[in-house]
Amino acid sequence: MALTRADAEALDAADPLAGFRDRFEIGEGPIYVDGNSLGRPPAVTRERLQALHDDWASRLVAGWSDWIELPLAVGTLLAEGALGARAGEVLVCDSVTVNLFKLATAALDANAGAVVTDRDNFPTDRYVLAGVAERAGREYVEVDAATPEAVRGVASDVALVSFSQVAYRSGALADLPAVTEAAHDRGALVLWDLSHSAGAVEVGLGGAGADLAVGCTYKYLDGGPGAPAFLFVREDLQETLRSPIQGWFGQRDQFAMGPAYDPEPGIARWLAGTPPIAGLVAVQAGAELVAEAGIARIAEKARALTAHAIELHDAWLEPLGFTLVTPREPARRGSHVALCHPQAWRVCRALIEHAGVLPDFREPDVVRFGFSPLDTRFADVFVALDRTRALVERGEHLERDEARRRVT
Amino acid sequence: MALTRADAEALDAADPLAGFRDRFEIGEGPIYVDGNSLGRPPAVTRERLQALHDDWASRLVAGWSDWIELPLAVGTLLAEGALGARAGEVLVCDSVTVNLFKLATAALDANAGAVVTDRDNFPTDRYVLAGVAERAGREYVEVDAATPEAVRGVASDVALVSFSQVAYRSGALADLPAVTEAAHDRGALVLWDLSHSAGAVEVGLGGAGADLAVGCTYKYLDGGPGAPAFLFVREDLQETLRSPIQGWFGQRDQFAMGPAYDPEPGIARWLAGTPPIAGLVAVQAGAELVAEAGIARIAEKARALTAHAIELHDAWLEPLGFTLVTPREPARRGSHVALCHPQAWRVCRALIEHAGVLPDFREPDVVRFGFSPLDTRFADVFVALDRTRALVERGEHLERDEARRRVT
Repeated sequence: MALTRADAEALDAADPLAGFRDRFEIGEGPIYVDGNSLGRPPAVTRERLQALHDDWASRLVAGWSDWIELPLAVGTLLAEGALGARAGEVLVCDSVTVNLFKLATAALDANAGAVVTDRDNFPTDRYVLAGVAERAGREYVEVDAATPEAVRGVASDVALVSFSQVAYRSGALADLPAVTEAAHDRGALVLWDLSHSAGAVEVGLGGAGADLAVGCTYKYLDGGPGAPAFLFVREDLQETLRSPIQGWFGQRDQFAMGPAYDPEPGIARWLAGTPPIAGLVAVQAGAELVAEAGIARIAEKARALTAHAIELHDAWLEPLGFTLVTPREPARRGSHVALCHPQAWRVCRALIEHAGVLPDFREPDVVRFGFSPLDTRFADVFVALDRTRALVERGEHLERDEARRRVT
Repeated sequence: MALTRADAEALDAADPLAGFRDRFEIGEGPIYVDGNSLGRPPAVTRERLQALHDDWASRLVAGWSDWIELPLAVGTLLAEGALGARAGEVLVCDSVTVNLFKLATAALDANAGAVVTDRDNFPTDRYVLAGVAERAGREYVEVDAATPEAVRGVASDVALVSFSQVAYRSGALADLPAVTEAAHDRGALVLWDLSHSAGAVEVGLGGAGADLAVGCTYKYLDGGPGAPAFLFVREDLQETLRSPIQGWFGQRDQFAMGPAYDPEPGIARWLAGTPPIAGLVAVQAGAELVAEAGIARIAEKARALTAHAIELHDAWLEPLGFTLVTPREPARRGSHVALCHPQAWRVCRALIEHAGVLPDFREPDVVRFGFSPLDTRFADVFVALDRTRALVERGEHLERDEARRRVT
């Protein structure tokens, strides 16, 4: 049990990743426990973006001879450093939403049957998958949980199973290998959304034989607001699937500008338009930090940070009416902890406006505390939960307005 | 006739936009005549991006309460300042390729018949449109020219006509109102690609009653490499069309994260994933310059710069084996001039590697000289063409290798 501030500080003192906090730009701000929405800027990112700007100003269009390599180069960094995949299997491009659309559509072109996801999947996943299914005239099935049992229980033939590896609300970590196997047993392709897991847990795409994946880079990969997403296509599927968005950056011998679309043989066919260079440079900086720290050590710290939060919840918050939503088994959770509370919105606003703590809220009644293993300290977890306890004990949250404002 | 350097300098002295050159970051580099591929950085962009970076570091996720407005705010700036459209009709998001895909697919969902484009349209347009037509089981027709006559001559029923307003190779400016009218006479929707016209000519979407448009922001709008694109949907079409990519940023009451996709009533339904904030901030800076200078004055200077280049071509380059591809009528061209030459590739390489001039090459035999009205001087046009004359007279281009390298 680690229930005092001194206990938390002792955990920080023993943390092999503690030094990485200095590799981020961290000012005076609040205790930040929303890195699962938007990660902090790595310290090196500012100078990298300045150098890119210099390049733009001085080399002008000639800069493209280097920039054009970035979607694949940064993809390879992520593949090898964060995703357990190989060079040539990952690209950084477009948004999660657009990449989901491309891969899900391609999967339905190649495979007959229904599209399966879970009811609690992230909204854009559910909306995109439902739309893709409808366009293809397929059944769209929402199961109750992102589990192998749920996949096995679908009555129809299944073309595509798409789950998030870490659920955005609960923080539950799906069993990626077992779900992948269950999907394959059904003759289905599997498409993972790694937005809440990449850079926080060991994803292990290659070891599990996963088919397809997408994910975002502005959470645990620290690429900045709206940084481009990534996509993964297992090497042996790259020749058989085709992007529905036949863009010139996916064209073989692109600058021949030939008469008809003829996609690149490898992963590059999944590019569409001109890639966003500033975003790619920022993602590269974040992905380098993850690769340097090592995803195994990062995942271990994620489990320790969330364990610390769960201990404090059990001791302090459960008696105040909070309920832990996140699984207690360390191997079954990502790097954020979700707590239900009947006044969750008001608790969240009070923490932000009066307690110097920045978590986030998810409808209808969840407060999420997200921990970025490279820059969140055990002491931050302690302070965030201690202040939550203090303000709920004093009833300060009840002074907040119930009306929602839009905040991501 | 303005055939001496002094003549060119006199034109600069009389240019009401001459002062805008100081609003860009311009170093020692070459005579830059490829702003139609990638525009220069506005001077203010560097500090705007620094301020955004500060915001990211200090406000963290709370920055989204402002950033979330940018796709529409920057779209409105473009609508009113560059496109002749209205607030609420333009968004900045995704790439040209992805936006073309979204709008063309939506147009085919709403309208029966073939997809018509022209054989010389930009590659990504042809590839995307062919793919969208194929997926919808429609005929895909490539006509010879982006003209009303070509639209009237299509034998089949037509669902969608999609042309570029300014052709990327020839620099020809299509008659946007007449083509739009011809398309409407056929019962077709029209989708304009404004990549080579936005920020260089008076687009006039509203006056022409155009239906749909897309365009890029890294050419005459100076948003930087891979900056996000824009899209336009005429107001009265916004309720009847739907994006095939059902993303969460297009969802009504997005943060309710409701069970089913229910698109926003207005232009916001055309957003897909999380918008790229750094790109949006850079586009905003470029679009502000265009709005401040005024698109009518910009277009007038574009006609004057290209007229100057054509005069010099006629006097100096035509006798050396060059042929003007761009229309001579000022109202029928954009802001770049295309010259055919049997050794165009070698001429281009010699200019870049030995003459301090940076134009670009397009297969198989075209050199493009692109002029950015806000930062290109008449003297730049003079020097670029003078050096072209000098090196071809001396046969220096014949020393260059014929083998192509990829350069955008």
